[in-house]
Amino acid sequence: MIDIQYSSEVQAAKSEGRAIVALESTIITHGMPYPQNVEVAAQVEQDIRKAGAVPATMAVIEGVLHVGLEPDQLQALGQAKGVAKISRADMPACIATGGTGATTVAATMIAARLAGISVFATGGIGGVHKGAETTFDISADLMELAQTPVTVVAAGAKAILDLPKTLEVLETQGVPVIAYGQDSFPAFWSAQSDLKAPLRMDDPAQIARAHATRQAMGLPGGQLVANPIPADAQIAAEDLAPVIAQAQSEADAQGIAGKDVTPFLLSRIFELTDGRSLTANIALVRNNARLAAKIAQELNKLTR
Amino acid sequence: MIDIQYSSEVQAAKSEGRAIVALESTIITHGMPYPQNVEVAAQVEQDIRKAGAVPATMAVIEGVLHVGLEPDQLQALGQAKGVAKISRADMPACIATGGTGATTVAATMIAARLAGISVFATGGIGGVHKGAETTFDISADLMELAQTPVTVVAAGAKAILDLPKTLEVLETQGVPVIAYGQDSFPAFWSAQSDLKAPLRMDDPAQIARAHATRQAMGLPGGQLVANPIPADAQIAAEDLAPVIAQAQSEADAQGIAGKDVTPFLLSRIFELTDGRSLTANIALVRNNARLAAKIAQELNKLTR
Amino acid sequence: MIDIQYSSEVQAAKSEGRAIVALESTIITHGMPYPQNVEVAAQVEQDIRKAGAVPATMAVIEGVLHVGLEPDQLQALGQAKGVAKISRADMPACIATGGTGATTVAATMIAARLAGISVFATGGIGGVHKGAETTFDISADLMELAQTPVTVVAAGAKAILDLPKTLEVLETQGVPVIAYGQDSFPAFWSAQSDLKAPLRMDDPAQIARAHATRQAMGLPGGQLVANPIPADAQIAAEDLAPVIAQAQSEADAQGIAGKDVTPFLLSRIFELTDGRSLTANIALVRNNARLAAKIAQELNKLTR
Ligand SMILES: [Mn+2]
Ligand SMILES: [Mn+2]
Ligand SMILES: [Mn+2]
Repeated sequence: MIDIQYSSEVQAAKSEGRAIVALESTIITHGMPYPQNVEVAAQVEQDIRKAGAVPATMAVIEGVLHVGLEPDQLQALGQAKGVAKISRADMPACIATGGTGATTVAATMIAARLAGISVFATGGIGGVHKGAETTFDISADLMELAQTPVTVVAAGAKAILDLPKTLEVLETQGVPVIAYGQDSFPAFWSAQSDLKAPLRMDDPAQIARAHATRQAMGLPGGQLVANPIPADAQIAAEDLAPVIAQAQSEADAQGIAGKDVTPFLLSRIFELTDGRSLTANIALVRNNARLAAKIAQELNKLTR
Repeated sequence: MIDIQYSSEVQAAKSEGRAIVALESTIITHGMPYPQNVEVAAQVEQDIRKAGAVPATMAVIEGVLHVGLEPDQLQALGQAKGVAKISRADMPACIATGGTGATTVAATMIAARLAGISVFATGGIGGVHKGAETTFDISADLMELAQTPVTVVAAGAKAILDLPKTLEVLETQGVPVIAYGQDSFPAFWSAQSDLKAPLRMDDPAQIARAHATRQAMGLPGGQLVANPIPADAQIAAEDLAPVIAQAQSEADAQGIAGKDVTPFLLSRIFELTDGRSLTANIALVRNNARLAAKIAQELNKLTR
Repeated sequence: MIDIQYSSEVQAAKSEGRAIVALESTIITHGMPYPQNVEVAAQVEQDIRKAGAVPATMAVIEGVLHVGLEPDQLQALGQAKGVAKISRADMPACIATGGTGATTVAATMIAARLAGISVFATGGIGGVHKGAETTFDISADLMELAQTPVTVVAAGAKAILDLPKTLEVLETQGVPVIAYGQDSFPAFWSAQSDLKAPLRMDDPAQIARAHATRQAMGLPGGQLVANPIPADAQIAAEDLAPVIAQAQSEADAQGIAGKDVTPFLLSRIFELTDGRSLTANIALVRNNARLAAKIAQELNKLTR
């Protein structure tokens, strides 16, 4: 086992057996500028506390895995330059070389497993990129969901991805995809999509039982809870579709490729929606944090 | 560990250390109309008994995993409406929510592992769907074979699938594909195909030894035994190819897509062959059951 | 656990706790004609000894896994006809049926794990074949790297493969790809490619620490160390590209497909480079053996 540095709050929650919700840190280092990133991160942590659980923001800082960040650590991470985005492939190397890295969905799931945390709230998972039939560009998040026992609450996968192919890969890999409170698979900034979710649950206790049953059956993976963005914060799919299409065609025209595509698209969508995409993103993360806190508490009841 | 309800016959076989063969239940709920489905299921169970082993038909009934069905449970399942088809992704949710589900190949393998059963007979496994290079539609059965230690006896993969791509995925995932008694990979309703099978074995004891060696090496997956349909029951590949092609082109013309394609194709092939496809299907399942019973007994000798 | 036959040298190294480097055997049976194959294999073993570690060439001989070959066994294997190339899918069957097989990268990793060996030197790993977007032809080596805890030192993947797609699959599967001493991903016969490697390390001790950290985190897979061919032995990428393109277009014109493509391409590249491709191949394998010996010794220091 590697060394883990727990925040004082998470350490106390662990010894008291309280419900804990994992949070990722790329939203801090790569999602928004300072100081908004730190303000939003602190707000999401506070949402989890208000909903009755304890937040554990994950990061690797100078080679040490941190589970829960003290306020000064969050401030420092929010202002740090050139922090790596780490996933399954590079997380051990980052730790071994004393590096600092913000955790993606895959790396946060790994950190949560190491810390004994079963529920994780994020914005959207990675998935199959548009054009993956020729590029083979598929996020490691999907394989992580197949093998690491963490329930991930997200507003679906980012709508700039190929959502039908993302659902197919999740099915092939045996990952439960549970829409919360509706039948369709949500599309990040939009509550609805044309895609039917494979499973639907309306109750955090039910989601917790499904998680516990999966573990009791010896199945190694987690669950994706696809939680639609609140109606008052969403950008309707029909409004967003032409925006995504325009951003994508600009990327194609300018020859943007590989790892540069996602940041380019997100930045253009921000501009083309006059910032509404970011407001929506913050609203959906907070909404996911609240649901994750409820699931974590239900799971805590089952496993204590 | 979850609760398992064993049939009295399977319970006795377990305590006596007798050979057991797992059977799936989607053939009952989604393969044929009542009462033919129950008659065929009972006949296949009887084939296994005659061949010296004990059948264990798998199903989730009102949230409880059943390993082996009593005759009245088989009758009830055969007449039930709206039973879910469950795979790795939704099996724990079905159990956690008290649902009823028939097990696909992947779910039957999981059930067999939980019950300590190593051999499973079915008709054909799922595989790579035609057009998967653009749809990414690949059955979870292939990944299950890579990770769950069960030898699956099938007449290959259904010939409406993309068989060359199915073999490629199995190779990539490290799954042994063993043609029984011939060199070519069988094509479900047809004994032969143009594809060479990666491995050939002519003897159930050899297949059992390969299974045991795999476990002894700590490799997590199973084996696919591709057992050709008996010659007198087969539809020759050259007769079937135009039928499959016609059914496929009708599906395309009518815009049938996604999960609706397989039932549509199977139904049209049934009609276009005047029912011979179903007769062949029953013959091959029974043939697989008999071979599975022999393999299970050989494996039993090795591991007792 | 299966029976393993250790060579006297490897047996001694194990009891003394010395560093051991695994070697594959398909280079002996399928890489070069006799006696050059045996001479090169002996030379590579000697390179490892000079660099301070002990070589363990893997092979299955008459159903027994050999970890380290005695000189007469190496001679016999080098002259044997019709030896199988075994990978994850067929290795247990080869052992169970008393067969003889040379180990690919995947099978060598499995053998190394069984023998408690953590570092392995080879020429190049398998990867995504050109045209895999329609053939789905992807080497099992990539999945092995995702699940078996062995650090593989190779000169990248063979340049006749689709290298960008190979890197994508490795990223999706969470495999660390570490270029040694440079930023770009090496291209087998050429030290440089246009592709940036995901990670770079300049020090065997660092690579060993990353390996050990991966294990300490409970992540199941290994690492790919992409070690560029020595400058004086390489064929520059711009010289090689037209050669590969010509060989590929000849293969297409002659309808060479499936498993016949790689041997055809390697043979034509050998002819078109007047044998320089083989000289380069030998130089890079020896270079990888020396680096693997250093990594194995560093890892030994960490884990003793
Ligand atoms: Mn990617
Ligand atoms: Mn599917
Ligand atoms: Mn291949």
